[in-house]
Amino acid sequence: MKVLFHVNKSAHWKTALGNILNMLQYGEENSMLFEIELVANGPAVKELQPSAAKSAGIYDQLERFATALRICACNNSLVANGITPSMLLPFIQVVPAGVVEIAVRQLNGYAYIKP
Amino acid sequence: MKVLFHVNKSAHWKTALGNILNMLQYGEENSMLFEIELVANGPAVKELQPSAAKSAGIYDQLERFATALRICACNNSLVANGITPSMLLPFIQVVPAGVVEIAVRQLNGYAYIKP
Amino acid sequence: MKVLFHVNKSAHWKTALGNILNMLQYGEENSMLFEIELVANGPAVKELQPSAAKSAGIYDQLERFATALRICACNNSLVANGITPSMLLPFIQVVPAGVVEIAVRQLNGYAYIKP
Repeated sequence: MKVLFHVNKSAHWKTALGNILNMLQYGEENSMLFEIELVANGPAVKELQPSAAKSAGIYDQLERFATALRICACNNSLVANGITPSMLLPFIQVVPAGVVEIAVRQLNGYAYIKP
Repeated sequence: MKVLFHVNKSAHWKTALGNILNMLQYGEENSMLFEIELVANGPAVKELQPSAAKSAGIYDQLERFATALRICACNNSLVANGITPSMLLPFIQVVPAGVVEIAVRQLNGYAYIKP
Repeated sequence: MKVLFHVNKSAHWKTALGNILNMLQYGEENSMLFEIELVANGPAVKELQPSAAKSAGIYDQLERFATALRICACNNSLVANGITPSMLLPFIQVVPAGVVEIAVRQLNGYAYIKP
């Protein structure tokens, strides 16, 4: 099952990562495979930098999820926030436009969840 | 037409229930059948208890909707909030993981609306 | 590619219009056609009036988008806010129920994005 999580506010990170943890645990317990992608845009891209992730209390969970899901940052949002890709956690993938990524994924069978 | 409403904040209950009322009224006036499911997760599960529903001013509307839609509470969120299923309004259905329910429904043809 | 943006709070307008601008620019640069519809319901319909759009700083962008996308206001929300269709910007289309429009579009292949 393919699922896309959309995070566009810094305040939504903890809820989103908690949601994903629940989904992964359900998958393990029920032998279901979830292909999860998280797309961050807007100010939420800031927490994808190591120090900001630590301040927000999500660094450990992001690290733990690094191999279990695909975590993407919107490049337009990075530019708007003065962040270059090299400033991000090493496992973050940069997509040119977060909203395009979100739309393309849905049209390719991903469910959409906005935490 | 199948529609899933996602409520994850207590502050979103009134909007969500107003949205659903509009949808049901439109259905009646236009002889369209809406199969509606509402999934509550996060702190929004608290208002599915009788006294909290009354305090939030949504008790009467929830009661009225009891037979018109399927209202589900995420069990992970119940546990996180110290709520057992027996403390909920009697017509609430408990699902193991709200986000899994939301994804499964979408992949089975439900539209997704986040009020 | 067909995409529906849902705006239900006045505070979400700038983000939504910024998202749409990014999508249109991506489409131009990559020769992709986006059929975009924006559905406003709840208090967000207020900013579809000329003076409120100016106060909110979104008038120019709405005007610029008038021909590039379909912008709809929920009639239930207009009534709830004491607004008649003639009070709206001339290019706004009124739909009877915003949530029905959102559901119908998704079931007709539109991706859903909640900014």
